Amino acid sequence: MEVAVLGGTGDVGGGLLLRWGADASHDLVVGSRDGDRAAAAAEAYRERVAAHVGDGSGDATPRIVGRTNEAAAASADVVVLAVPPEYLAETIASVGDGLDDETVLVSPAVALDVDDAGARYQQPDRGSYTAVAADAAPAATPVVGAFHTLSAPRLADLDRSLGIDTLVVGDDPEARATVAALAEEIEGIRAIDAGPAANAAGVEALTPLLITVGRHDDALRDPGVRFS
Amino acid sequence: MEVAVLGGTGDVGGGLLLRWGADASHDLVVGSRDGDRAAAAAEAYRERVAAHVGDGSGDATPRIVGRTNEAAAASADVVVLAVPPEYLAETIASVGDGLDDETVLVSPAVALDVDDAGARYQQPDRGSYTAVAADAAPAATPVVGAFHTLSAPRLADLDRSLGIDTLVVGDDPEARATVAALAEEIEGIRAIDAGPAANAAGVEALTPLLITVGRHDDALRDPGVRFS
Repeated sequence: MEVAVLGGTGDVGGGLLLRWGADASHDLVVGSRDGDRAAAAAEAYRERVAAHVGDGSGDATPRIVGRTNEAAAASADVVVLAVPPEYLAETIASVGDGLDDETVLVSPAVALDVDDAGARYQQPDRGSYTAVAADAAPAATPVVGAFHTLSAPRLADLDRSLGIDTLVVGDDPEARATVAALAEEIEGIRAIDAGPAANAAGVEALTPLLITVGRHDDALRDPGVRFS
Repeated sequence: MEVAVLGGTGDVGGGLLLRWGADASHDLVVGSRDGDRAAAAAEAYRERVAAHVGDGSGDATPRIVGRTNEAAAASADVVVLAVPPEYLAETIASVGDGLDDETVLVSPAVALDVDDAGARYQQPDRGSYTAVAADAAPAATPVVGAFHTLSAPRLADLDRSLGIDTLVVGDDPEARATVAALAEEIEGIRAIDAGPAANAAGVEALTPLLITVGRHDDALRDPGVRFS
């Protein structure tokens, strides 16, 4: 399977690519508006994964390449939109010609209002960012919300264990199952089914709560969550 | 310490009283608008706890009594408001004369909108139910939000293990610490500090997410959550 992460030079996208590079065997694509930056990030990720998993030679080097967002989206089976929420719709629009009913779009986007007390969810008019993504995508392309609860610094540090859940939400059950399986290829991540996109705001609102808890509870650093 | 649970004849309040009866050694008070119903519930809880912890004789019988809400609130050190959210403010108003700066009020209240897809948080105009409770309480009485994430049927079945967290939120750090310690006297519950009341909506919004997840994920029954 080919997995592209648009905005893959950023911290959330980079963390996912590093973990898939270390734990799975997919073809991975760093997408960026700037193809050169994407290629440089891909090289850096290859080196970090190789240093983590072995001596860096031969099969220990994962297949991670860099491309423009457009090229990355056009060939991938799963496209993760690791871009700031305010760029979510326009990023999808810019790659829309390359999407069809066999591409699964994944949104981890959440907008936050952060102050001294903690973080609060900023609900978009459309109800959720998963819904914003679905509105911007071609009608035939399934959209799934996932990966909201994964701390970027924790993902990116391949020596830190995870043991946390990600919630998977969206109207297409088959697409949810695809994303859930992809999520669980990362060691220590379990996917939890949160049902149709109508539930997405509740899922997205967990991200500011994790930031709030990480700020106030001294025992937790970059916290995630596990349902039980 | 004396702990009163107003609405203690209901399922959330009953679950908390059963757990404290089994695991802690406080004086427990079932509060109800109807003192006779409160007394009957107290007797039933005493019997269930005694049957769980031993032979029902002597010290194995916890001290659980029933009183009207007014009488329960007037003498307790901690008052848990286990009433439906629409009765939260009027319940506090009805017992307000008995509250002072040495009583800690605890609100587990959340309003939900439930349909076939899942459950969604209904945010009150005041921002959160913790804020609704603080508005209704005497100015000197500290208000803490807690116990939102504890499934009533799971609490009430003393044979089921917990291993879950409750988030504690409110503007008075000392009151938060009191409620956190009380929560952790229940075996398998850990209290997580969520900071001031400005964060309460995010905490309360976790309850509908737990209901949504319990509905969609076959592996989870009456789920709780643990931060890590």
